[in-house]
Amino acid sequence: MSTTHLPDEQVAREEELVQRVVDSFAGAEDERLRTVLGSLVRHLHGFLREVRLSEQEWKQGIDFLTAVGHLTDDRRHEFILLSDTLGASMQTIAINNEAYADATEATVFGPFFVDDAPEVELGGDIAGGASGQPCWVEGTVRDTDGRPVPGARIEVWEADEDGFYDVQYVDDRTAGRAWLTSGPEGEFRFWAVTPTPYPIPHDGPVGRMLAATGRSPMRAAHLHFMVTAPGLRTLVTHIFVRGDELLDRDSVFGVKESLVKDFNPHPADEPTPDGRDLGGRDWSSVRFDIVLAPADDQPRQGDH
Amino acid sequence: MSTTHLPDEQVAREEELVQRVVDSFAGAEDERLRTVLGSLVRHLHGFLREVRLSEQEWKQGIDFLTAVGHLTDDRRHEFILLSDTLGASMQTIAINNEAYADATEATVFGPFFVDDAPEVELGGDIAGGASGQPCWVEGTVRDTDGRPVPGARIEVWEADEDGFYDVQYVDDRTAGRAWLTSGPEGEFRFWAVTPTPYPIPHDGPVGRMLAATGRSPMRAAHLHFMVTAPGLRTLVTHIFVRGDELLDRDSVFGVKESLVKDFNPHPADEPTPDGRDLGGRDWSSVRFDIVLAPADDQPRQGDH
Repeated sequence: MSTTHLPDEQVAREEELVQRVVDSFAGAEDERLRTVLGSLVRHLHGFLREVRLSEQEWKQGIDFLTAVGHLTDDRRHEFILLSDTLGASMQTIAINNEAYADATEATVFGPFFVDDAPEVELGGDIAGGASGQPCWVEGTVRDTDGRPVPGARIEVWEADEDGFYDVQYVDDRTAGRAWLTSGPEGEFRFWAVTPTPYPIPHDGPVGRMLAATGRSPMRAAHLHFMVTAPGLRTLVTHIFVRGDELLDRDSVFGVKESLVKDFNPHPADEPTPDGRDLGGRDWSSVRFDIVLAPADDQPRQGDH
Repeated sequence: MSTTHLPDEQVAREEELVQRVVDSFAGAEDERLRTVLGSLVRHLHGFLREVRLSEQEWKQGIDFLTAVGHLTDDRRHEFILLSDTLGASMQTIAINNEAYADATEATVFGPFFVDDAPEVELGGDIAGGASGQPCWVEGTVRDTDGRPVPGARIEVWEADEDGFYDVQYVDDRTAGRAWLTSGPEGEFRFWAVTPTPYPIPHDGPVGRMLAATGRSPMRAAHLHFMVTAPGLRTLVTHIFVRGDELLDRDSVFGVKESLVKDFNPHPADEPTPDGRDLGGRDWSSVRFDIVLAPADDQPRQGDH
C-alpha cells in the first residue's frame, strides 16, 4: 500500500470513512446484498487510496462511465465490452465454472447473443446469408460420465467475414446465428462460416481506453456456443482457430488452449460431408466434442 | 479472503488471469494511466473473487450501471450520486485535502454546481427568489498564517426550502446560487436562505440501491461553498446546521464536525445587520470563517 508514508491521522480518517460506508449497509435485509456491497466498497476505496486518485482523475472517471452509459443500448453493449476488456467477464466465468472432470471449458458470453435466433435442423446452415467461407461443424454432446446427451439445445453465433455480427448492421438482418437440437446419440452437425478475427467495437470510450494503453481491439477468430440440457451445467463457450496469431492477445482474455481447434481446409473439388454443392468454393471443417458438467446446486458463495 | 478453501488450481487460474489483464496495460505510454488501471484491475478482480460473484449478479451489475448511465445528463448526474452514496467522492476529497494546520476542511462537491452563476456584491442576496427563511451569512477568508485574503472568489449554492436546486426545475430559473468577492480585509457577507434537509434524487437506480439497503436518501441541511484564490488550495466545502438530526446519517457521508455551525434564529422584529426589510419574516444568521491552505505543487501521488 502506498498509504504507508501518510500521517497516522490521515490513514485513520480514510479508514474511518470506509467503515462508515460499509456500516451504512447494515440495514439491508438481503444478507447477500450486504456482503456484495460491503466488499465492493472496501475494494473501491482500496483502489482510490492506493493510487491516491486526484479530483481531476475522479472527474475523468465519472465522464468515462457516463460516456459508456450513453453509448449502451439494446444493440451496443459498451458496459459489457468494458467488463470484457478489463477481464472482469472472464474472471466471473472462471469463478462460476470451476474445472470439473473433462467438462468443456467456458469462456466469455460477449455482447452479441440474441434471444430469438432461428432454429435449424441437424445439418442445416446457420449462416443465413452471412458472408464467408463455408465451414462444416460436427461433434457430440456428452456428460462427464461419457453418456450421450440427446435433445441438448445448441445456440451458435458468429461474425461474418467482414467481422460484423448481424446486429451490427442497420438492416435488421438475422445471419450467422441459429439454434439446433442434438440428435439421439448426442450428435450435431451444421454449416457455418469459417471464423475470422475481428475488432470489438472500438469507436467508443472502451476503444479509447484500448488505444491509450497500446492494446489491440482484435479478438481471436472464434465461433460462439451456448449449450443447455436438463440437469447439466449450461456451457457458454467458443471454439478458436489453431494457428490464429491473435490467440495470445485476445482483447477480452477469452482464449483457453482446450478450446483451440483444427479448422481443416478443403479444396472446392473435395466432396462435402452431406453432399452439399458449395458452388465451387473452398470450405473448412472442424470437430468439437462437447462435455457438460452436472448442474451445480448453487454457485459457490462466500466462505465455502 | 474467501478463496482460501478453493482448489489450488482454481486459485492459480484466477490469479493468472488477473496478472494477464494487468500485463495487457504494459504498453501504455502514460505511466500514471498504467498505474491507475493496474490497481483498478487488481481491486476489481479482488472484489469479484472475494464475493464469488455469480453470473446473474454480474448481469445485474451491468444492468445497474447501464441504468445509471441512461439517467445521467447535464442536469441529472446519477454517476456522481452513485460515487457520493458509496463514499467514493468523500474518500477522494479526503485523499486530496489532507489536514493542513487550521485550514477549513473540505467536503463533497455534489452534482448541483453550475459554472455560470450570477455575481452579487458584498451584502447581496444569492437567493434570487429561492423560497426559504432569509439567512445572513458573514465571515472572513484568511490563510493559515492568519493573513486576510482579499479578492477571493466565493461561489455559494444551495437548495430552496422545498429541497430543490434551481437546476432541478424545468423552467431554467437561476436561484440559490451566486458568486462574490471577498473585501479588502478578506471579509464577506451575503443573504441566502436557511438550509433545510432534502433527499438526493432517489427515483433512479441509486435510489433503488438506497431503498434496498434501508438507507435514507436525506442529506443533512447545508450551504455549499467553493473558494478560490491565487496561491491557495481551492476549498470545496459546506456548512451544516448544528442540531440537525441528520448530521450522523448524511446520505453522502459529507458531514465533518468542524463544518457544523450555529445558525442563530432571529425574530421578525429584530433589526437585520444591514437594515434590510424582510417584510415581517423571521431570519437566521451564521458566521463562517474560512482558512485556506497553501496550494499544493502536486496532488499526492503513488509512493510519496
